[in-house]
Amino acid sequence: MVTLTTDFGLADHYVAVMKAAVLRRCPAATLIDVTHQIHRHDVLCGSIMLERAIDGFEPGTVHLAVVDPGVGSARRLLVAKVDQQWVVCPDNGLITWAWRRLGPGQAYELTWRPERFSDVFHGRDIMAPVAGRLAAGEPVESLARPIDDPILLPIEPAKPPLDQGEIIHIDHFGNATTNVQWEDLKACGKSRSSVSNVEIGSLRRTYEDVAPGQPLALIGSSGLLEIAVRDGSAAAALGLRVGQIVKLS
Amino acid sequence: MVTLTTDFGLADHYVAVMKAAVLRRCPAATLIDVTHQIHRHDVLCGSIMLERAIDGFEPGTVHLAVVDPGVGSARRLLVAKVDQQWVVCPDNGLITWAWRRLGPGQAYELTWRPERFSDVFHGRDIMAPVAGRLAAGEPVESLARPIDDPILLPIEPAKPPLDQGEIIHIDHFGNATTNVQWEDLKACGKSRSSVSNVEIGSLRRTYEDVAPGQPLALIGSSGLLEIAVRDGSAAAALGLRVGQIVKLS
Amino acid sequence: MVTLTTDFGLADHYVAVMKAAVLRRCPAATLIDVTHQIHRHDVLCGSIMLERAIDGFEPGTVHLAVVDPGVGSARRLLVAKVDQQWVVCPDNGLITWAWRRLGPGQAYELTWRPERFSDVFHGRDIMAPVAGRLAAGEPVESLARPIDDPILLPIEPAKPPLDQGEIIHIDHFGNATTNVQWEDLKACGKSRSSVSNVEIGSLRRTYEDVAPGQPLALIGSSGLLEIAVRDGSAAAALGLRVGQIVKLS
Repeated sequence: MVTLTTDFGLADHYVAVMKAAVLRRCPAATLIDVTHQIHRHDVLCGSIMLERAIDGFEPGTVHLAVVDPGVGSARRLLVAKVDQQWVVCPDNGLITWAWRRLGPGQAYELTWRPERFSDVFHGRDIMAPVAGRLAAGEPVESLARPIDDPILLPIEPAKPPLDQGEIIHIDHFGNATTNVQWEDLKACGKSRSSVSNVEIGSLRRTYEDVAPGQPLALIGSSGLLEIAVRDGSAAAALGLRVGQIVKLS
Repeated sequence: MVTLTTDFGLADHYVAVMKAAVLRRCPAATLIDVTHQIHRHDVLCGSIMLERAIDGFEPGTVHLAVVDPGVGSARRLLVAKVDQQWVVCPDNGLITWAWRRLGPGQAYELTWRPERFSDVFHGRDIMAPVAGRLAAGEPVESLARPIDDPILLPIEPAKPPLDQGEIIHIDHFGNATTNVQWEDLKACGKSRSSVSNVEIGSLRRTYEDVAPGQPLALIGSSGLLEIAVRDGSAAAALGLRVGQIVKLS
Repeated sequence: MVTLTTDFGLADHYVAVMKAAVLRRCPAATLIDVTHQIHRHDVLCGSIMLERAIDGFEPGTVHLAVVDPGVGSARRLLVAKVDQQWVVCPDNGLITWAWRRLGPGQAYELTWRPERFSDVFHGRDIMAPVAGRLAAGEPVESLARPIDDPILLPIEPAKPPLDQGEIIHIDHFGNATTNVQWEDLKACGKSRSSVSNVEIGSLRRTYEDVAPGQPLALIGSSGLLEIAVRDGSAAAALGLRVGQIVKLS
């Protein structure tokens, strides 16, 4: 099983040829697209999606994540083992959210290089073949060397006493996911949230607990506090964006 | 074989983790996306897409359809057998168009629940595992109980004498599909259509039967009367929308 | 292995039912989407994508490409063998770029027809079954007859002395691919390019060789000269479009 997460979009052939490169090394691989619609170079968003993918899949899965503004530069490439699954990605912070929520795991610098490769498409020429090789059972030691300093973005789960959290992702429906974990919220006895000076009120169980068009806070499917609007877009209705503070009480 | 039809979009991880949940119960499943770009909560559109999927696939296929505005509420979940294929979806009318054109079939209320599940993502936590179990050959009786009243939307194929039909879907090209079936049209001896006070003329065989930019009526690939514009968008050119009446003579 | 390239978009069921038709003839096929977001009827763009798909995959792969404004008319359907891979597509020029860069190969007119087929969806009813049959190992002779005049668009790799090239594709990132091949550029000793009266300067190795927001020319992952803007869109910043001339010196 190999998943793919990129900012390549779906209009070009880039994803397909990356898949071809995986399958060349592991013809039996099942390929699953996580998303290719990450906003260009949005490493933070890629990092959230990658963590969700690891959380959803089984031990042994290989996750190929390519959001790679520094392609062709001296930046390192990363292989990581998190939650008994493999990640292959640029070492630019993409691993962050998985590292914080599911790890830390083991990190490796990818040292394997093919004889020839493009300077602008390491996804196809280096990372995809490595994902295929790992999926085919090749030992990581033949491809990479251990490191202990993968690059991590300055983002982590909100910490007790949990006076506030931060919006880390806006999804397709306009729901805003925060960095506030359900178990921490319970432990701290917090239940009310507000954002942008709008009082969201106490935690609800599901969307139908409020009237259509009303905002609510609930625990999303990732176990994190989420701000939503029933049958609407919280992002649009409340002007939410990634990085915004959510106050808790 | 398991198909997927949702309003989740392609920007997030939701589809991928639903696929992971299917594959966990049926590792040999071939997964086929029908579409994930149904307009949010547009159960009618989902219903049309689902019928097309069933029509296109073979006996034994499992179709997982999740357009689920009532997630977490008391609404039932449905398993249905139509045309020797399985459907797993919320009981909110998604089954309608398949029921009308290919059925009726057998309906069941899904009673199986996992030990723990999110209140906001039954697609991942309940419906996808059930789709996987059915695909793996598990008998429906262990998952659901027979019912005879699945929820159906007020939409059906136009009835003789076929004075008019209704637009039920606008596709990517701006072609407008109606609820008028080819065999009924022939039986009623109707061949001319008009919509929005525009005379479309008699039935054509294919797009090239009119000049570029001209409207035409033809039998679409679903066996239904379709209003199109050659090399253009009928929806844009004629201001068409779902629910609009098409007059026949 | 069967790839799919169309202008069908992802909002409808069209791609899924075409896949069903492939799988019915070749249940073991692995299906890979190249893209379904080709602009409606843009045969040139489809041709570029198809060539990239063939370049990325292995001998024996079957490529199904459907950008088919003339569906239902007297236009021929094509089977082609290029670079030891099969292509099934309308004979409207879709094969052009593969023919020019990877071929020429062998061309056949598809003569096989099913008993019944829609006049508006030959992708599902004729081409997909043929792709499945070729993938399953059926000999081309039972499906098609040799021809020597497949339709080719008036586009080819730029020729020495390489005073100029032409933009042939704009990708998701706004990078502009030209018809100028790296090996020809070297042979002719050209290295500087300009477009729209903007001097792009000499060839760079990768994006980080210029400052953010600056334009650059480099060899893209397809081995062709590409005009890009670091961390930006060359198409938007420089007003680039397909067909525009790039001057070389």
